[in-house]
Amino acid sequence: MCFLTWVEMKIKRRGRTSLRPFSRSSAMAKSKFEYVRSFETDDTCLRNCYIVVRLDGRNFHKFAEQHQFAKPNDDRALGLMSRSARSVMEELEDITIAYGQSDDFIFVFKRTTTWFKRRASKLMTHVASQFSSSYVFYWKEFFGEQPLLYPPGFDGRVVLYPTNHNLRDYLSWRQADCHINNLYNTVFWTLIQKGGLTTTQAEDRLKGTLASDKNEILFSEFDINYNNESAVHRKGTTLIWEKRNETVSKRIKRPNEEEQQVPVTRSRRKVEAYYCDIIGDQFWEEHPDVLEDDT
Amino acid sequence: MCFLTWVEMKIKRRGRTSLRPFSRSSAMAKSKFEYVRSFETDDTCLRNCYIVVRLDGRNFHKFAEQHQFAKPNDDRALGLMSRSARSVMEELEDITIAYGQSDDFIFVFKRTTTWFKRRASKLMTHVASQFSSSYVFYWKEFFGEQPLLYPPGFDGRVVLYPTNHNLRDYLSWRQADCHINNLYNTVFWTLIQKGGLTTTQAEDRLKGTLASDKNEILFSEFDINYNNESAVHRKGTTLIWEKRNETVSKRIKRPNEEEQQVPVTRSRRKVEAYYCDIIGDQFWEEHPDVLEDDT
Amino acid sequence: MCFLTWVEMKIKRRGRTSLRPFSRSSAMAKSKFEYVRSFETDDTCLRNCYIVVRLDGRNFHKFAEQHQFAKPNDDRALGLMSRSARSVMEELEDITIAYGQSDDFIFVFKRTTTWFKRRASKLMTHVASQFSSSYVFYWKEFFGEQPLLYPPGFDGRVVLYPTNHNLRDYLSWRQADCHINNLYNTVFWTLIQKGGLTTTQAEDRLKGTLASDKNEILFSEFDINYNNESAVHRKGTTLIWEKRNETVSKRIKRPNEEEQQVPVTRSRRKVEAYYCDIIGDQFWEEHPDVLEDDT
Amino acid sequence: MCFLTWVEMKIKRRGRTSLRPFSRSSAMAKSKFEYVRSFETDDTCLRNCYIVVRLDGRNFHKFAEQHQFAKPNDDRALGLMSRSARSVMEELEDITIAYGQSDDFIFVFKRTTTWFKRRASKLMTHVASQFSSSYVFYWKEFFGEQPLLYPPGFDGRVVLYPTNHNLRDYLSWRQADCHINNLYNTVFWTLIQKGGLTTTQAEDRLKGTLASDKNEILFSEFDINYNNESAVHRKGTTLIWEKRNETVSKRIKRPNEEEQQVPVTRSRRKVEAYYCDIIGDQFWEEHPDVLEDDT
Repeated sequence: MCFLTWVEMKIKRRGRTSLRPFSRSSAMAKSKFEYVRSFETDDTCLRNCYIVVRLDGRNFHKFAEQHQFAKPNDDRALGLMSRSARSVMEELEDITIAYGQSDDFIFVFKRTTTWFKRRASKLMTHVASQFSSSYVFYWKEFFGEQPLLYPPGFDGRVVLYPTNHNLRDYLSWRQADCHINNLYNTVFWTLIQKGGLTTTQAEDRLKGTLASDKNEILFSEFDINYNNESAVHRKGTTLIWEKRNETVSKRIKRPNEEEQQVPVTRSRRKVEAYYCDIIGDQFWEEHPDVLEDDT
Repeated sequence: MCFLTWVEMKIKRRGRTSLRPFSRSSAMAKSKFEYVRSFETDDTCLRNCYIVVRLDGRNFHKFAEQHQFAKPNDDRALGLMSRSARSVMEELEDITIAYGQSDDFIFVFKRTTTWFKRRASKLMTHVASQFSSSYVFYWKEFFGEQPLLYPPGFDGRVVLYPTNHNLRDYLSWRQADCHINNLYNTVFWTLIQKGGLTTTQAEDRLKGTLASDKNEILFSEFDINYNNESAVHRKGTTLIWEKRNETVSKRIKRPNEEEQQVPVTRSRRKVEAYYCDIIGDQFWEEHPDVLEDDT
Repeated sequence: MCFLTWVEMKIKRRGRTSLRPFSRSSAMAKSKFEYVRSFETDDTCLRNCYIVVRLDGRNFHKFAEQHQFAKPNDDRALGLMSRSARSVMEELEDITIAYGQSDDFIFVFKRTTTWFKRRASKLMTHVASQFSSSYVFYWKEFFGEQPLLYPPGFDGRVVLYPTNHNLRDYLSWRQADCHINNLYNTVFWTLIQKGGLTTTQAEDRLKGTLASDKNEILFSEFDINYNNESAVHRKGTTLIWEKRNETVSKRIKRPNEEEQQVPVTRSRRKVEAYYCDIIGDQFWEEHPDVLEDDT
Repeated sequence: MCFLTWVEMKIKRRGRTSLRPFSRSSAMAKSKFEYVRSFETDDTCLRNCYIVVRLDGRNFHKFAEQHQFAKPNDDRALGLMSRSARSVMEELEDITIAYGQSDDFIFVFKRTTTWFKRRASKLMTHVASQFSSSYVFYWKEFFGEQPLLYPPGFDGRVVLYPTNHNLRDYLSWRQADCHINNLYNTVFWTLIQKGGLTTTQAEDRLKGTLASDKNEILFSEFDINYNNESAVHRKGTTLIWEKRNETVSKRIKRPNEEEQQVPVTRSRRKVEAYYCDIIGDQFWEEHPDVLEDDT
């Protein structure tokens, strides 16, 4: 199926002495082609802006079907998404906050980051890559013996936000989206699973309803107060870095004493998960380090 | 650790009737934040150019150490790279050719592709994601019981090439790079593994040598003709789509006959691997469908 | 209206000896601010593509009214556009062809140009600037004593074309546009100027007509064969560089001879104007140097 | 020099009836070429950032020589630059501040501007064009009978600044640059014009001097206090919009009264020039409308 190059054939014919011209031409060849590097374009992100990388699962509707995800929310799948996001944050420490819901996750690099010289392509591909390899790597931790049928894909993009205000509005937009989708899905699947409707009937029932109507259906027909539903479903997952004191016991041998187990406390940065409102001010007041000062 | 939003607290206090304002405000909230979408910038690739996505392993020197890759080439690792690249091509059919060596792989989309509306970010993140999840997914096929210690990362970028000539020069540059690196590594590790040198001694020995000198060392001291070394190491891996006839046997029942096993031949597109020169014209003449006509 | 800086005030108060700190702080100040340069983004045009800069007159409908341009075409105005375009070409010699009609002009840089390091912003602003200053500078040559009432504006943009085929299609698109507009305008103003219709009546008359109908109106009602109309109106203006032999007489003094007037012929590159079809192949066959070889 | 298209030739041969196919094909032709529009790329500026357009004179060293500009500063030339900048601001009202020195001028669009849909190319070319045509148009107002020898060129670029802080640092950088250049030029030309040095001697004398040394030379050798030099030279020109009350007299005829001249006061926005420090806070406190609130 394969073949020899002209140079190799010449070598075969002429024997050992012909090795020399081959080598020289290959070295020359490389420098002749090197001009192609100048076709790369610079995609450095504007300085002093938050760099947001957003990932979305590709064809996750089908992926969820094929892997029998629970409806409307599969806690194993959500846990795996979070675990993968945590892996990304631990690899790229300039990400100060990440937010995920359903099959998408966003990662916010601090506005002054210089990772990859702020090159958009490098930032977004590394995030997409690390997230995807982690998703497969940690699958077993969440799905146990249920096999992963094929390697899933995520696509990504970069968006810049110049001010804290814009960034918070972006995160608020994602959380508002989470709320609206989850409320819809909760009612939809309750109508089917508890109300005995078909999917078509459930769709028809919800057509044109406001969020308030959906709350009403849950409350009056199924005795469900939506606000008591799981926070991770209603609010999504917010990951941030936090300093935690960690106490480990160490064996220490002091002079003229016997070796002892001694408790040692250290402050360590860890990724922590929150399932709470990030639209209002409280979260931001409680975690003032997430955003940098605009001025 | 978490807390209630103002709206939720109001709801708790007031009870059921307060569900209404909550819902309305959340719907309004989302539309208030939606302006953040306009911060996304368009990164459509210039029409009628080849779109090349290039992936590079992150910290693969360390990764190779930790997973005891054979030196200078680990066929399991190269096989896994190719398997992952094939997975990318099967997912993104507008990739007409891919080329890999060591821990990098490049993917060439046909110049007229309209996948993801030619959006650079989508194309490169999807390639990076699919490659990475495949790398973990297919690990076992190549490394058997040897465990993968952590999820690896790859970063990527997009480069555009306006003409067939430029694209071929780009691929030639990669293959010339493969040749130069592999020749160096082959001599370097032969000096150590067969010649008993330390790494420092081997480095010193090779300092300032031309390619021809390296061939000479292999030939005269170790009786190795570099050109007889494995093609996959010397030339890298080239993946293209090929039409293959496939014969399967089908059970067919014709009227007034008994059911029979019948051989059925179909033409199917498959990804095929080549380990040969792609700098010269022969490969391109034998596979005229890879490149589109410039005019 | 103005005021002293803090530094200057201190200087006034303290007298001469305080000059030193002032100077030092200003030098330090500059380096403190210099980081702002890194906010500039690279807008280098993709290599090996034709760079097209297109200019359009701003509010030229109003400008034409205010300066009593003749309808449907004002030869003074068209001449001034061409003169300004020629000035741009003479200033930026890597422009190989320019094409203008009505109040727009396009300039094509050769695909291998390195002017301004191929920076899009520099190329388009210089073209826009040179064209605009020339338009005012040469006004008098075309409009004589009729005063220019205010400085006109043009806006521009850059478009890249990867192949000769694409570039020719772009130029063809502009010339097809010129044809369609000029045919419409010719009939429209003939209906008014010779046919005595109002503008509204002329518009109504032309609503829904094909190009063939317009030719018919001109021919049967006004005895005008559109194809005999002025080529500059029908085809627009194409500017290219041409080598011309130029004979000048020089005074030369040879040894043992008297000084003489001698004719000297030199080849000189000059911008030449064509008013002909550039959609078909003939123009390109006659001027093979305008396009570079794709391969 | 020109020639007929194939279509036209057919028309000539066949006569009038052949007008039909010609027209149809030309209409079809245009739509066939229209795909070239999709090669334009979107260059919308990131939302909520200040858009700065910076212009620089091209070859103004030579231009200044040829037009005998006074050294080190020519007030006619500076006046013409300011006049042209004012013309740009009056044309593009979303420019809130402009700053000029020597042969460059910068224009700051408000961060929320939607002019030209924030398309960078349109913004910078329009500024460059309007400035250049104004420079020629207003030449006579500043240079009287001294003729403009040729149309000058300016090139431009766009830079974005996400915060007020960054924008002020950018303006400060320009003014610090103005200070450093003007101090150097002032001493340099004083050494030549009053000190009798040649340009080479003056250069040598200033080699390695700090700003403080330059102040010292001016003060001790020429009895010049640099801080008493003209503010427009030391500080450059800052243009902003200001509301001014304007009183005009109008003839008014009230019922049962005779027509009268009546003074009418109106508030009008006008471009005003400042020649003062813009590095410190005072200017910005006195003109709070120039910058928008970051939050």
